Order: sequence, then C-alpha cells, then structure tokens
Amino acid sequence: MEIKVLKKVLGANEDKARQIRQLLAEKQVLMVNLISSPGSGKTTLLEQTLRALGERYRLAVIEGDVATDKDARRLQPFNAPIVLINTEGGCHLTAPSIERALQELDLDALDLIFIENVGNLVCPAGFDLGEQAKIAIVSTTEGDDKPAKYPLLFRQAQLVILNKIDLLPYVNFDKAQFYENLITLNADVPVLETSCTTGQGLEGWFSWIDSKLNRAKAQVLT
Amino acid sequence: MEIKVLKKVLGANEDKARQIRQLLAEKQVLMVNLISSPGSGKTTLLEQTLRALGERYRLAVIEGDVATDKDARRLQPFNAPIVLINTEGGCHLTAPSIERALQELDLDALDLIFIENVGNLVCPAGFDLGEQAKIAIVSTTEGDDKPAKYPLLFRQAQLVILNKIDLLPYVNFDKAQFYENLITLNADVPVLETSCTTGQGLEGWFSWIDSKLNRAKAQVLT
Repeated sequence: MEIKVLKKVLGANEDKARQIRQLLAEKQVLMVNLISSPGSGKTTLLEQTLRALGERYRLAVIEGDVATDKDARRLQPFNAPIVLINTEGGCHLTAPSIERALQELDLDALDLIFIENVGNLVCPAGFDLGEQAKIAIVSTTEGDDKPAKYPLLFRQAQLVILNKIDLLPYVNFDKAQFYENLITLNADVPVLETSCTTGQGLEGWFSWIDSKLNRAKAQVLT
Repeated sequence: MEIKVLKKVLGANEDKARQIRQLLAEKQVLMVNLISSPGSGKTTLLEQTLRALGERYRLAVIEGDVATDKDARRLQPFNAPIVLINTEGGCHLTAPSIERALQELDLDALDLIFIENVGNLVCPAGFDLGEQAKIAIVSTTEGDDKPAKYPLLFRQAQLVILNKIDLLPYVNFDKAQFYENLITLNADVPVLETSCTTGQGLEGWFSWIDSKLNRAKAQVLT
C-alpha cells in the first residue's frame, strides 16, 4: 500500500514538472536547479552570480529552506525577485511547490530562474522540478568520494561545480580520484573548479550560463 | 490518505526503536547515532575512535550508506565488527533496519555501537533508531548558520561536535554566531571542537564516551 501512494506522489510530481517545463519554454525562461550538501556554497555562488550578471540578465531566485529565511535575506540586496519556499522540515523541493512559487514571478520579465534546493545530496536528486538543468555543487572539503557515494545526483547533473578549490592545500582531496568517480557515473558532464570566496573559476560559470541562455533563445527563434 | 500512511510508518518506527532501546539496556550496550552532512568527517572520526579505544572497549559499527561500501571498507582494518546497511537510495536509517543489523552482532560481547547514519542533516533527525544519544557533527567549512537552518537535529542532539576546527583560519565562520544559533535551540548541549585529521580535541570525545559508558554500567548495577 505504501508503494502505491509513493508512486502516486512521484507520478503527480512528474506531471507537474512536465507542465512547468512547457510553460518555461513558451516564456523563454531558463530555470536551473542547484543541489548540494549543506554548506557547499550555493548561496555564496548565487550572491556572486546576482552581483555579476544582474545587469546582463533579468534574474530571479526560488529559495528552498527547511526552517529559516536566512539565505533569502542574504540575496535580498541584489535587486532580483526572490520567492522563499519554507519546507517546514521537508527535505527537498517538489514540482507543485515550484508551480506555486512561479505564480509569484512575472515570467514575461525574466530570463533566468535559479532554484536553490534544500541542502541535501540525497532527496532533491529524486524530484524533477521542471528545470532545464540540475547542477551539482560539491566542495573540496567534503571529500573526493562524494560522486560515488551519492550517485543519483551526479548521474543526472548537467554541470558539476567543484567549489572551495582554494581550500585544496588544506584538505585530503584527491582530484584524480574525484574525476574518476564522477566520470564512471556521467562520462561527459562538464566540471567547473571554483572558489566562491576568491572568485576563482567563476568566469567559467558565467560563460556556461551565457551559452545555455543563447541556446535556449536560439531554439525558440528557429 | 498519505498522512495516515506516514503516521503508520513513523508509529512502527517508534515502536521498534523502543524495543531496541530496551534490548540494549538489558545487554548493557551503549549505542550512539552519528548524524551530519556528507563529508563532515563521520568516518574519519570513527577511524580515530576505533584506533584509540579499540583496546579499552568492545566496539562495533553499523554503517548506513546510500550506494557503496566505501565507508565500511575504511573501517575494516580496525578489528571491530561492522554491519553495512545499504539503503539503495534511501535518505536515512530506520529502526527496523537497525533491528536487522543488531541480529548480526553478538550483543553480549559488546560495550558500544556507533551508528554512522546516511550523510544528511534533514531526514535522519526525524527517525529514532533506539540509540541512547544522537550526536550532531558539523564542520567549520559548512558555515556558522547550520544549527539555525537545520534545527530538528540540533534541538535533539545530546552532543555537538564542531569538526575541521583546523580549517578555521581559511573559512568564513563566526564561532560566536554558531554558538548563539545553537544555544537558542538547545541551551545545555555540550560542544566539542575537534579536528579529526590533526587529532585536536579528540580527547574530549573519548572522555565523553568514557563518561557515558560508566554511567550506563552504573545505572544497570545499582
């Protein structure tokens, strides 16, 4: 009986995700879903991104958090609309919660929506939110074994950001091992090595966004 | 309908946890449940602990992992029995899975069982495993806001380990802010500042174990 209910919930999520993806395609809005452990640097990455690209693109953030509005408040200074989904203990965002969040945004006035999922490497990977790309962020301080240990996310990711690269000299992290683990799961996924505190490697992230947005617009126009 | 099923599952978990707690009290075995984000240092803490206390106490480990036996293999050299629970994507351990794991251990020949839960700050906090203490591990690299952002775990923890204290000079981590966040949730919880790579602060952790074990034995004897 539990399995039937679970299937129903997952099926409803998939249906809703499909509708969201179609809506965003019609509106020519790109939406990406940032997934990582707690404290890997998602919010700091968004601070840097809103600061750097806020003039170039019309940005918005959907912020998923278990309990507080701390991350949402960190992003308030950047003049992009922010919708906070407080999951009240829930361990991941769902497509229905994203649908409700999108109703708070003017999609005709946006190019790109960032979803900051709940800090969790396990559950968010199982839920399609209607995004065009899942982005896995993992920091050097978490260890080189993370792709192998949390394979679902790394298998699905369209981009992997290896963050806190500035801390590499101080931690036990074997980069060759990390890439080997990752490539076994997802052979062609691009990887960006970044430090969101020093700014190292962020140009690559901004270029990835440029490229994705250019492609999205071209597909609609042609 | 979904809520009814969820209650049934949680109720069954609570019943099983109570039975486990009673069994362990009869057998005079202490069991502690280590919970943290991925990569906070649970396995490294266990390596250090099995190395340091393996002569003093009869130890065992129940290892929860989403997909691999990597952590279990890291603990194999230490001559303590290890039971691996592979959750096959599941985001936390449950009391029924612990009951099955305990059947693989000779409880009459043990003093202390460590549970290494799945790396996740959200879901494991909601499931009683019949342990005598939940221990929250958080590393300085994850940021000082973690207690406030993941309150359920930090509210329940009987001990908090602030790990990777050796990386403090290289990260943005406001210790006063961390303690303030934590104390709001759990006023009296002891906090140990450790580095599992340099060994700093581990004596405090070993003393905590000594004290817990002495108390457990005394309670049974008097």
